[in-house]
Amino acid sequence: MGRPWYVGYFEGRDWLRNIDYTQEDIKKVLEAAWDLKRKFKSRIPTPYLKGRTLFMLFYNRSLRTRNSFEAGIHQLGGHAHFLSPDDVYTPTLPEDMVPYQTEAISDVARVLSRYGDAIAIRIYGDPAKWIIGRGHRIVEEFAKWATVPVLNMEDDLYHPFQALADIMTALEVMPKIRGKKFVVSYAYSGGLKPLAVPQSVALIAAMFGADVVIAHPPGFELMDDIIKKVKELADQYGGSLTITNNMEEAFEGAHFVYPKAWSPKKFFPPFNSTVDKEGAKAYQSKFKNWIVTMDLLEKAGKPYYMHCGPADRGQEVTDEVLDKYEKSLYFEEAENRLHVQKAVMAMVMGSKYEEYE
Amino acid sequence: MGRPWYVGYFEGRDWLRNIDYTQEDIKKVLEAAWDLKRKFKSRIPTPYLKGRTLFMLFYNRSLRTRNSFEAGIHQLGGHAHFLSPDDVYTPTLPEDMVPYQTEAISDVARVLSRYGDAIAIRIYGDPAKWIIGRGHRIVEEFAKWATVPVLNMEDDLYHPFQALADIMTALEVMPKIRGKKFVVSYAYSGGLKPLAVPQSVALIAAMFGADVVIAHPPGFELMDDIIKKVKELADQYGGSLTITNNMEEAFEGAHFVYPKAWSPKKFFPPFNSTVDKEGAKAYQSKFKNWIVTMDLLEKAGKPYYMHCGPADRGQEVTDEVLDKYEKSLYFEEAENRLHVQKAVMAMVMGSKYEEYE
Amino acid sequence: MGRPWYVGYFEGRDWLRNIDYTQEDIKKVLEAAWDLKRKFKSRIPTPYLKGRTLFMLFYNRSLRTRNSFEAGIHQLGGHAHFLSPDDVYTPTLPEDMVPYQTEAISDVARVLSRYGDAIAIRIYGDPAKWIIGRGHRIVEEFAKWATVPVLNMEDDLYHPFQALADIMTALEVMPKIRGKKFVVSYAYSGGLKPLAVPQSVALIAAMFGADVVIAHPPGFELMDDIIKKVKELADQYGGSLTITNNMEEAFEGAHFVYPKAWSPKKFFPPFNSTVDKEGAKAYQSKFKNWIVTMDLLEKAGKPYYMHCGPADRGQEVTDEVLDKYEKSLYFEEAENRLHVQKAVMAMVMGSKYEEYE
Repeated sequence: MGRPWYVGYFEGRDWLRNIDYTQEDIKKVLEAAWDLKRKFKSRIPTPYLKGRTLFMLFYNRSLRTRNSFEAGIHQLGGHAHFLSPDDVYTPTLPEDMVPYQTEAISDVARVLSRYGDAIAIRIYGDPAKWIIGRGHRIVEEFAKWATVPVLNMEDDLYHPFQALADIMTALEVMPKIRGKKFVVSYAYSGGLKPLAVPQSVALIAAMFGADVVIAHPPGFELMDDIIKKVKELADQYGGSLTITNNMEEAFEGAHFVYPKAWSPKKFFPPFNSTVDKEGAKAYQSKFKNWIVTMDLLEKAGKPYYMHCGPADRGQEVTDEVLDKYEKSLYFEEAENRLHVQKAVMAMVMGSKYEEYE
Repeated sequence: MGRPWYVGYFEGRDWLRNIDYTQEDIKKVLEAAWDLKRKFKSRIPTPYLKGRTLFMLFYNRSLRTRNSFEAGIHQLGGHAHFLSPDDVYTPTLPEDMVPYQTEAISDVARVLSRYGDAIAIRIYGDPAKWIIGRGHRIVEEFAKWATVPVLNMEDDLYHPFQALADIMTALEVMPKIRGKKFVVSYAYSGGLKPLAVPQSVALIAAMFGADVVIAHPPGFELMDDIIKKVKELADQYGGSLTITNNMEEAFEGAHFVYPKAWSPKKFFPPFNSTVDKEGAKAYQSKFKNWIVTMDLLEKAGKPYYMHCGPADRGQEVTDEVLDKYEKSLYFEEAENRLHVQKAVMAMVMGSKYEEYE
Repeated sequence: MGRPWYVGYFEGRDWLRNIDYTQEDIKKVLEAAWDLKRKFKSRIPTPYLKGRTLFMLFYNRSLRTRNSFEAGIHQLGGHAHFLSPDDVYTPTLPEDMVPYQTEAISDVARVLSRYGDAIAIRIYGDPAKWIIGRGHRIVEEFAKWATVPVLNMEDDLYHPFQALADIMTALEVMPKIRGKKFVVSYAYSGGLKPLAVPQSVALIAAMFGADVVIAHPPGFELMDDIIKKVKELADQYGGSLTITNNMEEAFEGAHFVYPKAWSPKKFFPPFNSTVDKEGAKAYQSKFKNWIVTMDLLEKAGKPYYMHCGPADRGQEVTDEVLDKYEKSLYFEEAENRLHVQKAVMAMVMGSKYEEYE
């Protein structure tokens, strides 16, 4: 049993944002993911990370991310630690230290680097104090101090592994994304949600040359620098970017629609002087008509339906779409989380020159 | 090292109740459990589920169940995820959904099925809202949607793995159970407890042809359909069923006594219009004399003492019995949880036609 | 691949205090730890505890201890269960039992002994009710009932694995400790902390023949019997013991300084009639000048700086010392936790006469 080419291919590198990598790099990840997916289905052993440890720090709840990372590293022969902030002294930025409750991220990152092989973090919303960008700063602080790879399991700006799973899923049903209409749309939810998913999905769709359409009500604008980057990538890879405030128009003739809730950034620092959760919720509640129904999908010409999960049933989307729409990719996207994450772990945590049994 | 016959013997099947299987099937489980027990004691490796993942969802506390499943799958080469409802979006029946806090069981079951190899659930009491039968419905809902085996780690009606461990333990000290007096008795506790253990134990004792005696104060009746099934099984396998309200009489000449607290169902829906915990506790407190003492056991002729654990010391049973009674099977039952669960996991999660190292 | 000499060297023994072992024994542990450290750095597989299970019971938070034990046993081929007291029925001394919430340690220890291969416990402070010595009694109660090795992950009197990591670290920078000035000093913190670290460090330094200096303000005396034992060991191994109330004087010309907060025992039972946390904090706050600064270390002649972590930045020590002092051993001590613990686990949980792949 030989070691595949991708083990250790990006040895030692962090994975904070997909835009830190090139389109070529991402294609390598997908190639590795398909190899691992095939082996998983055939129950071919893949012990490429035997004895390796992944530390998973979850400041927020998770079903897909936690279970796909934990099962994934086990399938690669390694082991994940599930660390909730309550079990450890909460790792914290210098300005937020509380004696006897917190520990400096610089210390936590350096200590864990001595024991294992990668650190993965999820942080957005309340644990990042709803100051937009602070979650990402915390992830970057870990990366600054850790001497092992740091993996971003979703912060308040980026959710790179979701986007990797999404592009993998899209390519499985349509081998060329370039020139296809790919809609990243707002959909209503009463809950408060970060910008990470729509931003990361728009970026990766642009990186694969899609005609990206971003649709949302006024006030739900994504971050300026992200939009700028989406535009740049679209130009570079032969796609385009359109922004609209009309959901139905956006869906018309689309190949893929990705309708998903996020919260309007203008109610939160640094775009607002305070964290105004109630204001955000009240504003969101004006757009309950941004819901995905069978009718809407049929009128649009039956595009593939995508969502990172968990979808808020009855708000973002009807039960009927989730449970019966034949072009829903909802569970395929969830599954591909496993495969892309195993690919990246094998690439950054693995070693090119190591023997394994 | 060859693969034993039992790996994949029930490939892909759920294990929700023992009565979904025949006596022959159960005997196969025990045969596998004894093989695994022997190998465990001799430290013979048993990597029959290498790379397999078990998702364990615990809505209730657990010592024996959690640790025996988690250690058990590791001993088989696999890995268990310990999932507390707080760490994930709580998996919930359609009628109980709370936006942003819960996720439909249908979605959770389908997503986890993509990542791993079995889903195990424990739910009764408060997390099942004390509506009797609702815990079992939740387990069935998982089984309906999952495409991997679902294992019942105790709901409000059944605790199949406890009963398997119990019958294994009984057979270790008395090779034939048929025609032996096997008493499933109420014992006092101030706490609220489900019907799962007495019901599952009575069922399996009947399935092995015991003369089953169910003893409890008036008002502690088990479910009607369970009693009916116990009677049927007793008839089929050459045993009998007697129900009595007298503990001492029941114990007289018994080979096995299994005195264990449960709560009277008439205080809970659907047998009552509301959940009346205080009423149940007040009623229970009238039966503090239902305690197992050395004296009682000696008068009865020294039957084997059984309990699923944890026993409420000073309520269900005296310290003396637990710590000094020479015919107590308390720790043997706990130990055999490990072996029967490994057997069932190897049988339902394993694959007949797979190579392993 | 042969099995190293240390696997099973102390088969079946507990590790509650280092003073239950001889200096010769401890040297064997360090020899094993260095072998495992070298193999870890070279990524040489060390599957000496394949299929073994470690139960970790954490009554207190932990970063280093939990992650080094969990990663460590995985690197040895085994698996650790992370058990928080909330997930199980809390294991409890006979006098503290609360029906339906707790389970007797005697039962928990005996049940877990049937499923796996060692039980590790951390308990001090609130979970031990701030009665000094009670945490250690709980650990001893586990050891009394368990039939597998019990490991002390820090109680209110001893933290043996920290002290093992510390002496390993000291020996890495100075091959002979005998006759070297080794200062165990109080340093200020506003938090309440146990005596475990200073006591265990003083004991092991004495066991290696250091000239031990214990420095603290009046009222921060260590336990009498510990001091007596430090003195005995110093006499036996060619060292000495000095106690002083002057930090600066203590540091003067030291080879190693270990400045670390603990709380004055006179505010807690059995040295006080009640648990007087506020009294302890108020008293501690008089000694904020017991802080380690660059200036202090330079005046003292640049000794090696040691601390078990997490250090309270700005209270026990300045950021500058932790992040820039070139003779800080802070992260090396943390790292060596991994290696000494793997050594002890291999020695007590391993089997001399077992084949492994």
